[in-house]
Amino acid sequence: MKIAVLGTGRVGHALAGKFVSLGHEVTMGSRVTGNPKGAEWAENAGGLARAGSFAEAAAAAELVVNATPGRVSLAALAEAGQANLDGKILVDVSNPLDSSHGFPPTLTVCNTDSIAETIQRTYPQVRVVKALNTMSAPVMVEPGRLHGSHDLFMAGNDAEAKATVSGLLQEFGWAQEHIRDLGNLDAARGMEMWLPLWLRIFMQQPQGKMFNIGIVSE
Amino acid sequence: MKIAVLGTGRVGHALAGKFVSLGHEVTMGSRVTGNPKGAEWAENAGGLARAGSFAEAAAAAELVVNATPGRVSLAALAEAGQANLDGKILVDVSNPLDSSHGFPPTLTVCNTDSIAETIQRTYPQVRVVKALNTMSAPVMVEPGRLHGSHDLFMAGNDAEAKATVSGLLQEFGWAQEHIRDLGNLDAARGMEMWLPLWLRIFMQQPQGKMFNIGIVSE
Repeated sequence: MKIAVLGTGRVGHALAGKFVSLGHEVTMGSRVTGNPKGAEWAENAGGLARAGSFAEAAAAAELVVNATPGRVSLAALAEAGQANLDGKILVDVSNPLDSSHGFPPTLTVCNTDSIAETIQRTYPQVRVVKALNTMSAPVMVEPGRLHGSHDLFMAGNDAEAKATVSGLLQEFGWAQEHIRDLGNLDAARGMEMWLPLWLRIFMQQPQGKMFNIGIVSE
Repeated sequence: MKIAVLGTGRVGHALAGKFVSLGHEVTMGSRVTGNPKGAEWAENAGGLARAGSFAEAAAAAELVVNATPGRVSLAALAEAGQANLDGKILVDVSNPLDSSHGFPPTLTVCNTDSIAETIQRTYPQVRVVKALNTMSAPVMVEPGRLHGSHDLFMAGNDAEAKATVSGLLQEFGWAQEHIRDLGNLDAARGMEMWLPLWLRIFMQQPQGKMFNIGIVSE
């Protein structure tokens, strides 16, 4: 599959690297063509890896991953360009964290809306699927590194798009029964509002050990 | 211990019943003396159970549990009366859910504040501990009913108060290592903002099976 990963941070690197290792063609997109982080990644990641602007990455892709910080995601997608996005699946991994007022960070949008829904409203022809934003990047791409069964959440209005994303997540190593489809995209509110609790648990983890949550039932 | 449980809903009943079964003296408090739900509970729950107004319940107690809905908690505590609350531990189990605009419910307070912090600011001499709000009532009082290890969160500014609450939770059957102290009371924001995700998971549980989350680590 031809995939654009927008964002050159830890999440972008983890996802882009994993997609390439699975045989997908990946363009890592950044604000400017020639961004050193993107160029360095593409140089070292093998023949399936490329780097470019947000627009170049999206234009080349069948599926787009938004791995930019939530507070700049709309600006990044505007640079990617509606014509390069329309009709495509967009996997939104972002979290609308605002650390500008110190700790604890707040969310730039929550409660009655979410960044995923904002993206969907701005680009009605894009098939937005919220996924993967509820955990650290290394856990996203290697669920087996945690000791025990744990869960991943997904939300979106397009069932076919969610099935495609589920297939990619299963390539990552996620068992189908742990990919929890929470329904329509307004479920992304809860997935994003989880972040403040995630951060507090993260802070009390011994030696910064990575973690995720597992649903434990009757 | 002499405990006031404010609230006659499912959470109030579950907690009051559990405390009585453990040998504590419990007054279930409600808005009006002679509330039929409170009176009926007290009649059937044995010699350690009483019912009364919020003020009567709080006056008789060493520890107060706020099991009222978050949107009415401040009104309930005003009726309980500052003089009946000051110096005491208040376990805040409430969630500030607002269902008046349909589904999904929103939170009446979130992101930069929480109902627990609002209570603490209103009653600076009360030792507020947020706990138990992240799961269904039957799971609160019987953690062993779920198949697997799962976790409970706690937040508050008073270490001694948290130790007392932790002791009570251990009487409920919670193992100490699964009572996760997230720090000061501002961690209650995350605990309350978890509710929208909790609700979505709840909706996709097969046959409404109860659940909780467990932290799964490296």
